[in-house]
Amino acid sequence: MTQNTPAYLLEKDGNLWLTEDEHGDLKISYRIKEVVFDQKSNFQHVMILDSHAFGRMLVLDGIVQTTSKDGHIYNEMITHVPLSIHPDPKRVLIIGGGDCGAAREVAKYRQVEQIDMVEIDELVVKACKEYLPEVSGRLSDPRVNVIFDDGVKFARNKEKEYDVIIVDSSDPIGPAEVLFEKSFYQSLHRALKDDGLMVCQSQSPIFHRDVMEQTYKRIQEVFGTASMYTAVVPTYPGGLWSFTIGTKQYTEPDPEKVQRKDTKYVNDSILLSCFSLPAFMRK
Amino acid sequence: MTQNTPAYLLEKDGNLWLTEDEHGDLKISYRIKEVVFDQKSNFQHVMILDSHAFGRMLVLDGIVQTTSKDGHIYNEMITHVPLSIHPDPKRVLIIGGGDCGAAREVAKYRQVEQIDMVEIDELVVKACKEYLPEVSGRLSDPRVNVIFDDGVKFARNKEKEYDVIIVDSSDPIGPAEVLFEKSFYQSLHRALKDDGLMVCQSQSPIFHRDVMEQTYKRIQEVFGTASMYTAVVPTYPGGLWSFTIGTKQYTEPDPEKVQRKDTKYVNDSILLSCFSLPAFMRK
Repeated sequence: MTQNTPAYLLEKDGNLWLTEDEHGDLKISYRIKEVVFDQKSNFQHVMILDSHAFGRMLVLDGIVQTTSKDGHIYNEMITHVPLSIHPDPKRVLIIGGGDCGAAREVAKYRQVEQIDMVEIDELVVKACKEYLPEVSGRLSDPRVNVIFDDGVKFARNKEKEYDVIIVDSSDPIGPAEVLFEKSFYQSLHRALKDDGLMVCQSQSPIFHRDVMEQTYKRIQEVFGTASMYTAVVPTYPGGLWSFTIGTKQYTEPDPEKVQRKDTKYVNDSILLSCFSLPAFMRK
Repeated sequence: MTQNTPAYLLEKDGNLWLTEDEHGDLKISYRIKEVVFDQKSNFQHVMILDSHAFGRMLVLDGIVQTTSKDGHIYNEMITHVPLSIHPDPKRVLIIGGGDCGAAREVAKYRQVEQIDMVEIDELVVKACKEYLPEVSGRLSDPRVNVIFDDGVKFARNKEKEYDVIIVDSSDPIGPAEVLFEKSFYQSLHRALKDDGLMVCQSQSPIFHRDVMEQTYKRIQEVFGTASMYTAVVPTYPGGLWSFTIGTKQYTEPDPEKVQRKDTKYVNDSILLSCFSLPAFMRK
């Protein structure tokens, strides 16, 4: 347990509140039922909090990463879109994704033979497997190799090994900052097979337009072909979230071949329509 | 100016904060630069606040209704979708819509000859025209008749007069509650021409699933044919917002005939893809 109560978790009028601070201009406060897990790793402050509005939430350094109520949206969208574009994904690399939700979704594809998940923080995986089963599904598929390592270092040594690479990172501040650099996308390009593709979350089109545009530009420069899609993530600021794909060959899901999976948010029509971008994002 | 400071607008550490309270479980706080307008009408407490995160905001009884930064998304989506479905809209009725943003969008259609906008609260229109020009566009189109009246009463006396009716209401608590009742949809059905259609905002699929389902069900019962579409509204809880259409004849935009308008969010591909609902909403 942490020794000092952090500023983002405070009791007020007999209730416990987690408060997220968006650059000092916007605060989102969640009423908390219970602190389920609370430890510091070498990298960050890891908490699982049970909230009234969103159920259990993974909270890293005071920022909500995923919740029982809406975590499936993000995890379904970052996985089923690229796995519907690639016609025969066999080897998949997930960088980050410590909540285990992305790996859980990838494991729904029978033709996938190997899922390497490289997460820097073992404590996040441990906490989510045990205390956030709605997101992690208590991940135990034998095809998943969880590797606790630096994703940048891991990817640097790979060549033409993967069909699909999923970069499921946190925001580009602190440990995840390097996952938004051009040299990282270059090593992913090298780690992919000749017909491989990558996807990453590229932040909010409303609040982080500069990061989104930069990510798209960098990936396009490295891969030649990039595309962007969106999903709604209720607990992320602005609600709308962007994902960017870099690809060596396949660019869109084939409507004839989209496989139906057991999902709560994604379906055929979402997979095909998520590339329809609002006018302001087209620019 | 109001005599007593309301609980939702408080100074803290030298900053003014507006705090929205979602059923006591979730609070969203906006740092305010300036109180631009602050008066009480016979119906509600009307404020225009200038915020750091979203620019100027229309705030009714402490709840953010629309903002300079994202108000166009909601107003474009509640108008351009029905006006793209109807092949030749000439007479349009807007119920509510006091921020004038919906009327402003409808006025972009040259073939529209008359726009009746029935808003119960004159003070809202006055405040938005003067102090929220990014949303209202200082609405002055000669085809717009602004009528300060009860929308339910107004619609009750109309028969086969309108091509399109847009119900741009606030939440179904307080004055807007009657705009979610079945008898209201019945009078809209009567007020529409034989090939007319209506649209209303039907709340958040995440937080107000019961209202959304009930609205859809009631409109389907009255019209025989109902459909639902979504848009992202960053300042509404949950980000994702639903709209429900009740129609006597036309059901979808004709891709060949969609007119390009000067819009920031809507474009051809959004108009056609907004009916793609997530799996959980299909049910």
